[in-house]
Amino acid sequence: MSDHATARVSPVLARAHPVRIRFVLVETSHPGNIGAAARALKTMGLDDLALVGPKQFPSAEATARASGADDVLQRAMVFDKLADAVADCAAVFGTSARTRSIEWPTYSPWELAREISSLAAAEHAPESQTVAIVFGRESTGLSNDELMLCTARVHIPANPGYSSLNVASAVQILAYEISTCEARQAREVVVKTGTEAVDPLADQADLERLYSHLQFVLERIGYYDPAKPRQLMRRMRRLFNRALLRRSEMQILRGVLVAIEHSTPD
Amino acid sequence: MSDHATARVSPVLARAHPVRIRFVLVETSHPGNIGAAARALKTMGLDDLALVGPKQFPSAEATARASGADDVLQRAMVFDKLADAVADCAAVFGTSARTRSIEWPTYSPWELAREISSLAAAEHAPESQTVAIVFGRESTGLSNDELMLCTARVHIPANPGYSSLNVASAVQILAYEISTCEARQAREVVVKTGTEAVDPLADQADLERLYSHLQFVLERIGYYDPAKPRQLMRRMRRLFNRALLRRSEMQILRGVLVAIEHSTPD
Repeated sequence: MSDHATARVSPVLARAHPVRIRFVLVETSHPGNIGAAARALKTMGLDDLALVGPKQFPSAEATARASGADDVLQRAMVFDKLADAVADCAAVFGTSARTRSIEWPTYSPWELAREISSLAAAEHAPESQTVAIVFGRESTGLSNDELMLCTARVHIPANPGYSSLNVASAVQILAYEISTCEARQAREVVVKTGTEAVDPLADQADLERLYSHLQFVLERIGYYDPAKPRQLMRRMRRLFNRALLRRSEMQILRGVLVAIEHSTPD
Repeated sequence: MSDHATARVSPVLARAHPVRIRFVLVETSHPGNIGAAARALKTMGLDDLALVGPKQFPSAEATARASGADDVLQRAMVFDKLADAVADCAAVFGTSARTRSIEWPTYSPWELAREISSLAAAEHAPESQTVAIVFGRESTGLSNDELMLCTARVHIPANPGYSSLNVASAVQILAYEISTCEARQAREVVVKTGTEAVDPLADQADLERLYSHLQFVLERIGYYDPAKPRQLMRRMRRLFNRALLRRSEMQILRGVLVAIEHSTPD
């Protein structure tokens, strides 16, 4: 597998990911699902796809559904047996929708993502460390023998009355969890448009002037009666506080108040 | 929309969800994506699907891809315009992959899920409150006019070099985030803030009436000139959208506008 580049989480989402994450699809019946899985991986900045006994591969349908992620398909390794696909892996997680009588350690997707994240954070983790996530057949999932090859199970919580998650959707969810894990943990506001910083927030002194001006105008138009305040100004403050008013917006509101003053007779 | 049952999160994942969550697909080209979206919703215990101008619907391909979630397809409402599909909604979140020059409040999927969860936690939230999540065309997403109808944007973090998320995959990710939000939070120490959400959100139809009224009054007092709009109404929308206006606050603002009208000579 040394010809595989390290699967990296998108630099926008997190720092480069020192753990390879291989997505292994076992005996997938529909080539469209293989293509959709490749697309799902690439959208999340991942690219290590392995196929065990795919019914049809390569396939035009897979390439069509990959929709621009055909490079991931082209580099996908094909194996006869699951054991070969995960032979070089440090940990193997088998997805399963079923509850089995034999108890296995079972992770939620977010627990899996944190586990991988903590592996990645280990200072001396070797560059070559690979974690596999294994997805079973569309119809019957993974066999018990295949689950025996897994370090642990991962279960995506689903509607108990209809847990029929498409295999590419399951790939999408786990790839998404892994790629967003650090952003979640950091509790950062991940995506904010750049212009927000350009338009600074109104400062408190300006806000106080706005509220005074607003109160004056509301009194003038007969909406605010200081004798019966009805918590009106308090509610106005709460509303504008919640909006995190920008300086430019405050100037607009002040402009509106001036225009009201000019339009109303003394 | 009274024939729609309340969309409920799976009881295994969380308690019954008192907020309806409607997934709205705008001008979807490929019927297979509509079917896959229905399946994605149902796996996560959700069932309120609305279609705006689908290219082909109903369709055998949609039914095939829905794979047992055809009941969600059968109950899907079809609309000509996005405005009609969200008219009864308290909040509308538009998905967008693009960064725009004019700033909009933007949520990550998990921030959106927490926002919906906090609405649901409001003790006296009316049963009928609906939140919409809107997904654009496969090729071009949502238009600026359509985004204008949205309270806020939601952005799924993706590979900046390949952010081409399939529309049904985007539905899957957001449905998954919403349905697993409480299970995730249960493992965290979350400090809930005040009781603000007890006051229900204003719905979109009322908000549109507020904006029309506001524009009329701003024109009357000479602050708004339709010949030189300066993006004024757009900025006003953005400000009030960011505040997630409550119903009682909207009534106050309408009262203020009426008072201004009464105070200004014709």
